[in-house]
Amino acid sequence: MTARRQDFVSDNTAGLCPEVCAALGDANAGATASYGDDVWTRRLCDRVRELFEIDCDVFLVFNGTSANALALAQLCQPFESIVCHEYAHIDNDECGACEFYTGGSKLIPTPGTNGKIDLREVEAALARQHELHSHKPRVISLAQATEVGTVYGPDEVREISAFANKRGMFLHMDGARFANSIATLRCAPKEITWRAGVEVLCFGGTKNGLAAGELVVFFNKERSANFDYRAKQGGHLASKMRFFAAPWLALLKDEVWLKNARQANDAALKLTSELRSCGAEIVFPVESNAVFSRLDVVVAENLRERGWDFYKFIEPDIYRLMCAWSATEDAISAFRSDFKAARSCASAAR
Amino acid sequence: MTARRQDFVSDNTAGLCPEVCAALGDANAGATASYGDDVWTRRLCDRVRELFEIDCDVFLVFNGTSANALALAQLCQPFESIVCHEYAHIDNDECGACEFYTGGSKLIPTPGTNGKIDLREVEAALARQHELHSHKPRVISLAQATEVGTVYGPDEVREISAFANKRGMFLHMDGARFANSIATLRCAPKEITWRAGVEVLCFGGTKNGLAAGELVVFFNKERSANFDYRAKQGGHLASKMRFFAAPWLALLKDEVWLKNARQANDAALKLTSELRSCGAEIVFPVESNAVFSRLDVVVAENLRERGWDFYKFIEPDIYRLMCAWSATEDAISAFRSDFKAARSCASAAR
Amino acid sequence: MTARRQDFVSDNTAGLCPEVCAALGDANAGATASYGDDVWTRRLCDRVRELFEIDCDVFLVFNGTSANALALAQLCQPFESIVCHEYAHIDNDECGACEFYTGGSKLIPTPGTNGKIDLREVEAALARQHELHSHKPRVISLAQATEVGTVYGPDEVREISAFANKRGMFLHMDGARFANSIATLRCAPKEITWRAGVEVLCFGGTKNGLAAGELVVFFNKERSANFDYRAKQGGHLASKMRFFAAPWLALLKDEVWLKNARQANDAALKLTSELRSCGAEIVFPVESNAVFSRLDVVVAENLRERGWDFYKFIEPDIYRLMCAWSATEDAISAFRSDFKAARSCASAAR
Amino acid sequence: MTARRQDFVSDNTAGLCPEVCAALGDANAGATASYGDDVWTRRLCDRVRELFEIDCDVFLVFNGTSANALALAQLCQPFESIVCHEYAHIDNDECGACEFYTGGSKLIPTPGTNGKIDLREVEAALARQHELHSHKPRVISLAQATEVGTVYGPDEVREISAFANKRGMFLHMDGARFANSIATLRCAPKEITWRAGVEVLCFGGTKNGLAAGELVVFFNKERSANFDYRAKQGGHLASKMRFFAAPWLALLKDEVWLKNARQANDAALKLTSELRSCGAEIVFPVESNAVFSRLDVVVAENLRERGWDFYKFIEPDIYRLMCAWSATEDAISAFRSDFKAARSCASAAR
Repeated sequence: MTARRQDFVSDNTAGLCPEVCAALGDANAGATASYGDDVWTRRLCDRVRELFEIDCDVFLVFNGTSANALALAQLCQPFESIVCHEYAHIDNDECGACEFYTGGSKLIPTPGTNGKIDLREVEAALARQHELHSHKPRVISLAQATEVGTVYGPDEVREISAFANKRGMFLHMDGARFANSIATLRCAPKEITWRAGVEVLCFGGTKNGLAAGELVVFFNKERSANFDYRAKQGGHLASKMRFFAAPWLALLKDEVWLKNARQANDAALKLTSELRSCGAEIVFPVESNAVFSRLDVVVAENLRERGWDFYKFIEPDIYRLMCAWSATEDAISAFRSDFKAARSCASAAR
Repeated sequence: MTARRQDFVSDNTAGLCPEVCAALGDANAGATASYGDDVWTRRLCDRVRELFEIDCDVFLVFNGTSANALALAQLCQPFESIVCHEYAHIDNDECGACEFYTGGSKLIPTPGTNGKIDLREVEAALARQHELHSHKPRVISLAQATEVGTVYGPDEVREISAFANKRGMFLHMDGARFANSIATLRCAPKEITWRAGVEVLCFGGTKNGLAAGELVVFFNKERSANFDYRAKQGGHLASKMRFFAAPWLALLKDEVWLKNARQANDAALKLTSELRSCGAEIVFPVESNAVFSRLDVVVAENLRERGWDFYKFIEPDIYRLMCAWSATEDAISAFRSDFKAARSCASAAR
Repeated sequence: MTARRQDFVSDNTAGLCPEVCAALGDANAGATASYGDDVWTRRLCDRVRELFEIDCDVFLVFNGTSANALALAQLCQPFESIVCHEYAHIDNDECGACEFYTGGSKLIPTPGTNGKIDLREVEAALARQHELHSHKPRVISLAQATEVGTVYGPDEVREISAFANKRGMFLHMDGARFANSIATLRCAPKEITWRAGVEVLCFGGTKNGLAAGELVVFFNKERSANFDYRAKQGGHLASKMRFFAAPWLALLKDEVWLKNARQANDAALKLTSELRSCGAEIVFPVESNAVFSRLDVVVAENLRERGWDFYKFIEPDIYRLMCAWSATEDAISAFRSDFKAARSCASAAR
Repeated sequence: MTARRQDFVSDNTAGLCPEVCAALGDANAGATASYGDDVWTRRLCDRVRELFEIDCDVFLVFNGTSANALALAQLCQPFESIVCHEYAHIDNDECGACEFYTGGSKLIPTPGTNGKIDLREVEAALARQHELHSHKPRVISLAQATEVGTVYGPDEVREISAFANKRGMFLHMDGARFANSIATLRCAPKEITWRAGVEVLCFGGTKNGLAAGELVVFFNKERSANFDYRAKQGGHLASKMRFFAAPWLALLKDEVWLKNARQANDAALKLTSELRSCGAEIVFPVESNAVFSRLDVVVAENLRERGWDFYKFIEPDIYRLMCAWSATEDAISAFRSDFKAARSCASAAR
C-alpha cells in the first residue's frame, strides 16, 4: 500500500499531543495500584468535577462506542428505545453496540436539518410507538457536535431536555467532539450539560489528542448506580488505569483540551474558506472541526488519485473533510492546490 | 492514602517496559489510517503468525476480560456452557463478562489439584448436565499459566483437547500469562497451542509490559468468521489502533516478551527461595510468576502494617505474591526482611 | 366496559374452531410423557413433514412473536442484521423480541408497494451498511401474507431468495397467516417455501383456530442445530406439550387449516365487496383475510360509537378490518349497515 | 414405543382437571378482545388480589421457566447475581433461561439440608464475591415447595427475607408448587409471601391441573414497572389470553387449586406409607407431593422393566416419585405391588 494522506479522513487518524506523551512518561514510575485505585484516576475524577462545577460520577472506559453503549444500557431496559438523529453515530457507526449492551433496545432515527434533532419529528416518531407492541421510548440521544459538525446552543439543549423530561425520558449526550463544541460556544461546560438537563455525557478525548479512553459523566448520581460493574462486565475496566487517566489529566490541565479543539476548529474554518475561495460548495454550517462539501465525483476521484483519503457521506456527492487537533497549514494548502488541480482536470475531461 | 508497596499485589501494578515506551513514541508520527488499517497492526499480525508458525487470524482487543469473553462468545451460543477450573479467572474475576458476551452461557467450575483441569471431574460434571434442561457443554477453557501459577505441559494440553474433541467441544486457552508459561516450558508456542488442539488463545501482554491490549488468536480460520464485527460491537475496536499495535510489536521483537516473562518468573523463584529459607510454606509449585504462601493471619497483618499489599486467596490463610516483569531484587530483599520481622513480632505476641 | 364488537379488530379475537376443541378433549386422557415426548407431538411433526413433502425439522413454540424471534436468533449473530419491509410485524409489533433474542441485531426496514419487499430498496439499504461499523446483513424476512394482506407468489419468493442467496443471506418467512396465503395461491406448501428457497418458516395456527402454539419449520436441518435448547432457554418448551400438539394436529387433519383460512379469506372478499358497493375505497389488493379501507375520520368515529373496534393503520385515515376463520355473514351485514349509517351521519354533519 | 406408566414421573404428565376443561369451553364464545384486555383476565387478576389480600400486580405468562426468568430479569441487571439452593430448578433445569433473560447474571448455588436455603452457606457464598470482579449479589431465590418436596414455614421465609433485606437483596419465590405448600401449611397465602417479605412470586398452575400459564405476582408495585413490556418482548404475551386466564380463574374458584394440591399431597403421603411398609427408605421429609426413595439399582431397573418411569435424582441411588393432582389409589397400589415384586427379584438374583 502506498502512503496515503490521512489528514482529513478523520480526527482519529491524528497522533498524541505532546502533553499526552509527556504524561504517559510521567505515569510510568514504579508499581501502582491497579483498576483505577491510583492517584491519577482520582485526580482526573476531581478535575472533571471541578470542570463541570458539580459533584458528578466519572468513569473512564476504552472508547467512544463503549462509552455510548454502556451509558445507554445504564438508562435503558432491553424493551426500551432511544430516539436519535438519523445520522447519529450510535445508529450508523457502532455496529449495534447500543443494541448489544442494552440487550435488545431499538434506536429510532428521526430526520432534522443540519444534523440536529427536530422535536416535531421526535413527537411524530413517538406517536408511532404503540404501547407494549413497540419498545417503550426512554432516551433522547444527541451528539454534540453533531455528525455534520453543527453545535447545539444551550437553549437548544434545554428545549430538548424539557421535551424529554415531560415524557419521562432521559437526555444522553454523545460528546465525542464535546471539546470542539465548547471551543465554539465559549461557554462553561455546565451550560450545555447538567444545567441544560443532560443526564449523562460521553466525553471524548481520543479525537482530541489521546490514544484511547473516554469519560462517562453522570450528573445525577442516582443514575450511575453500579455503573462500575457494568463497565467491568463489558471488559472496559483497564487494569493499568493510570496509563489512561494520566493522559486525560494532562488534557484537562491548563486547557490543553480547548487548545487542541480550537486548533481543529480553526483548521476547519481555514479549510472552508480555502475551498469556498475556489468555488466549492460547503453544505453544512462549519461550527466545529468538520467540513462537508459537495464534490463532483470526477473531482473526488482525482483527489483520491492525488493521494487524499476522505469519506463520502450521505447523498451520492457529499464528502466529509475532518480536521484533527494536529491539522497543519501545509496540509490545508496542499489540499487546496490539489483541489484546484483536480477541478481543472475534471473540467478539461468534460 | 499513604504510599503502599504494590510490588507483589499483581503483575498489573507494574509499568511499561522500555521497549514499549520507545515504540509508543515511534508510532506517534503524523496522520495514520485508523481502526487497524495501519502498518503496525499489519506487521503485528504477521509477527504473530510467524511466532506461532501458522496462518492464524489475529485480533487486538482492549484487555484480558474482553479477549476471553469475546473469544468464548465466538464459540458458544447463549444456551451452551463452558467447563473451567473452579479457580478460573473467567468464573471468579471478570464480573460475568463471559455470561454477558455469550448472552446467557453458564460456566461450570470443576475442582482439580494445583489449579489444573482434572478430566475425571470434567467427566463427572458433564454427566450432571441433562440435555435440554441444562446448558449444552461446548467449551473447555484452561488458563496457561493457571490462577495458582502452575503450567500445563504440551501433553496435558493435548490430553484435554482430545477429551474435548471427542465430545464435540472446543478448547479455549486463557493466556493472560502465556508468556510466563513459554518462558518456563522453553517450547515453541505452537507446541502448547494449535499443535496441542487449542482452538483459540487469548494472548496477554498487559502483565508483560504493555499498558493495555490483548490478542485473540484463532488457529482455525473457520472459527474466526466475523470476529471483527463482534469485537467492534463490544466496543473493543480501537480507532487509534497503532498505539496498541506498535507496543505489542515491540514486545514480540527480539524476544522482549520472553525476557520480561523470564524476569518475572526468576523473581518468583527468588522470592520462593527467600521465603522458604525463612521457613514459610509455599503451597503450589512455582512454575511461573506467582508464589502462594500459607501465612499466619497475624504475620499477614503485620506485613500489611509495614506497607505491603497482597491478596488473600482461597482458604483463610493462603496469600498470593505476584511478581511482575519489573520485580526488583531490592523489593524481594525488603519483603524478606519484613517477613522475618513480622514473624518475630507474631511470635513475641503469642 | 360495555360489550364491543371485536369481529374485525384482529383474527386473534376469534375463538377455537370445533375440531381444536374436540382434540383438546381427546388429548386429556391419563398421564403422558411431557416436554414433547408424546404421541401427539410426534404425529404432528410427521404430519408437517408430509404436508411440506420434505424431511424438515419442526418445533412447537408458544406464539408468533417467539417463533419469529427464536428463528431469527438461530440465523443471526448479535452483530448481524435483518432486512424486512417497513410494515413488518417483527419490526413494529413485537416489542423488540427479535433484537432481544438475537442479543443485539438490528432490523432494517425498507419501503415497497403493497407491503411487499422491493429488491431495489433492499439493494439500496445494503449499500448503506458500511462493513464493521454497521451490522452485517444476514437475513431477509418476508411475511406471507404481508401485513397489508397481500400474498407473494412462488416466483416472487424465488426472486427474493435468489437475491439473498447471492449475498450470503438467509430467507425467513413469517407465516402468521401462511394458511391464508396457501388458501389463496392454491399451491402446494413447498412451492412457496423450501422449493422457493425459504430457510425457515414460522407457521402460524393461532389466527387459524388454535388457542396458542406456532410451528418453526427448518427446511435445512443444518440450520436447526440445537434449536430445541434455544426454545427451552427462552421459556418456550411446553411441559404439557400434548395440549398444544393435539390441536395443531386436528388443524392439519382433513385440511381443516385450509377450510378455516378459506372462510376467513372469503369473508374478507365479501366485506370488500360490501364496502365497495357502498363506495368505500379499499387501498390494498385483498388477497387474504385483511381489508384496508380509507375512512373519513368522522365515519370511523361514528362506527366506533356504534360499538365496532378496529385498528388505524399507517397514514392518518387508513383502517384495517381483519376477518377471522369465524367471521359471520351477520357480522359483515351488520358492519355494512352501520357503515352506511355512519356515512349518512357524517354527510349530514357536514 | 410401548406405553409406559407416567404416573410418578412428574406432576406435568397429568392432564387437565375437569373444572379447567369446563372453563375452556365456556371461554370459547364469540370474538373477544385480545392480549389480556378481556373479562377473564381482569377477573383473574382481581381474584389473585383477593386471594393474597393485597393490591398486587399480576401477569400471566406461558410457563414456569419464563415466569422465573422474567421475574428475575425484572430484579437483576446483567452484572448482578442470584443466590439459590444447589438443587434449584432455576439453576439445574431451565437451560439457562435466567442467565438469558437477565443478559448475563450468574446463579450462585449454595448447599443446605432438605433442599432448603441455609443462611450460613449464603453468608459464606456472599463473602466470596469480591466487588466489581464478581457479579453483585442482588436476589435470593427460594422454591416453595423445594425441589425435594419440603416446605418453608412462614418463620423460615421471614428469616431469609430479613437476611436479604439487610443486604439490599430481594427475595424471589419459585412457586411452581405453591399450591402444594399452602395445602400443607394451611395458612393464608399472604403469610408466606408479602407478609414474610417476598418481593415476587411465580405462582404455578400447570402442575395443578392447567395446560399451561403461570402467574407472576409482584407484591410491591414499584418493582413491576413495565413488566408487561418485558413479557411481550420475551414472546410471553398470549394473544388469545382468555384461553389461559379462564382456566386459571376456574382453578382459583371454590378452592379447586387447594383441592387439587391436597389430592397430590395425600397421594404422596399414601405412597410414602406404602413404600415404608415395604421397608423402603424415604430420604426427605414428605411435605408436599414428592417422595424421594433410596433404591437399589437392580430394584430400580426391575421397576422400569415393569413399565414404570421415574427420575433418578442426586446421588447414584436416590429416585424421585412425584404425585400429580390426578394420582389414583390404583396407581399407588400397582406401584407398591411392583415394588415388592422387584425387590424379591433383586434378592433372588443376589
